[in-house]
Amino acid sequence: MNFKNRLVILLVGAALFSCNQKPTNNAEVQQSLVFPKGELIKNNNFTGNAYLSMMVYADSINKNSVGNVTFEPGARTNWHSHPNGQIILAIDGKGYYQEKGSPKKILLKGDLVKCPANIPHWHGASEDKEFIQVAITSRVDGPTKWLEVVTDEEYLE
Amino acid sequence: MNFKNRLVILLVGAALFSCNQKPTNNAEVQQSLVFPKGELIKNNNFTGNAYLSMMVYADSINKNSVGNVTFEPGARTNWHSHPNGQIILAIDGKGYYQEKGSPKKILLKGDLVKCPANIPHWHGASEDKEFIQVAITSRVDGPTKWLEVVTDEEYLE
Repeated sequence: MNFKNRLVILLVGAALFSCNQKPTNNAEVQQSLVFPKGELIKNNNFTGNAYLSMMVYADSINKNSVGNVTFEPGARTNWHSHPNGQIILAIDGKGYYQEKGSPKKILLKGDLVKCPANIPHWHGASEDKEFIQVAITSRVDGPTKWLEVVTDEEYLE
Repeated sequence: MNFKNRLVILLVGAALFSCNQKPTNNAEVQQSLVFPKGELIKNNNFTGNAYLSMMVYADSINKNSVGNVTFEPGARTNWHSHPNGQIILAIDGKGYYQEKGSPKKILLKGDLVKCPANIPHWHGASEDKEFIQVAITSRVDGPTKWLEVVTDEEYLE
């Protein structure tokens, strides 16, 4: 093979190779993260793995707490309610939200939910895709009331 | 030029051209949007063009309003304060936040600010990059108090 041919192969190869420098799936997810993933939640109010990055703690004047929660596929909260309700902003992935007695809703990037006060509900990821949400919880009339586990039957219903 | 040389030029050209099929700037921004851009704000509490997508209105039980604001480069709020403070989540772009008497801070994707109650402050985009933020405003003790315009001197300081 002469020098020119070698050079040509090198050039075409380099050009094609440079097209294939796509980020991996992990890098893509990392790139799309708006807020840090935070730490694995270790209490008993969740089924499966969920991660919490606390962004704002309620104080005596601004009684809101704000947290970013990442649910792995299948992970969800227990049933719970809030005396002043809760606002959920869907940041990425695919999640579910259900109020007691109503069918579950699908949540996708950009969706939001305003949970009514004192209505038991749960939220979490879909079976096959993680779900990232920001929860804004008013503590004006007190803390979250945690209830029973969301069973597999309820989750899959 | 012989056939082989033409083929080589064609191949290298095609390979390089295929690398340049990047989305336009607009498409990139559109893709990264988490919440809708909303409508141009037409009141006198802003300098430059800012867009608001109201996500949640305060009610008598959950007294938070939540809105997504997109500031064009150079756009900003007037000075203002909130009786219960405000929480700002930086979603994308590059913004500024300043409290009266303190230097302005740069806000980038994922940053957050908890504005103290009754402290005059302003926020907006940087000179050359838009800024997208979610503002969470507690209305427990009343509405926002709007103050004077942020002058170019104050903005550029």
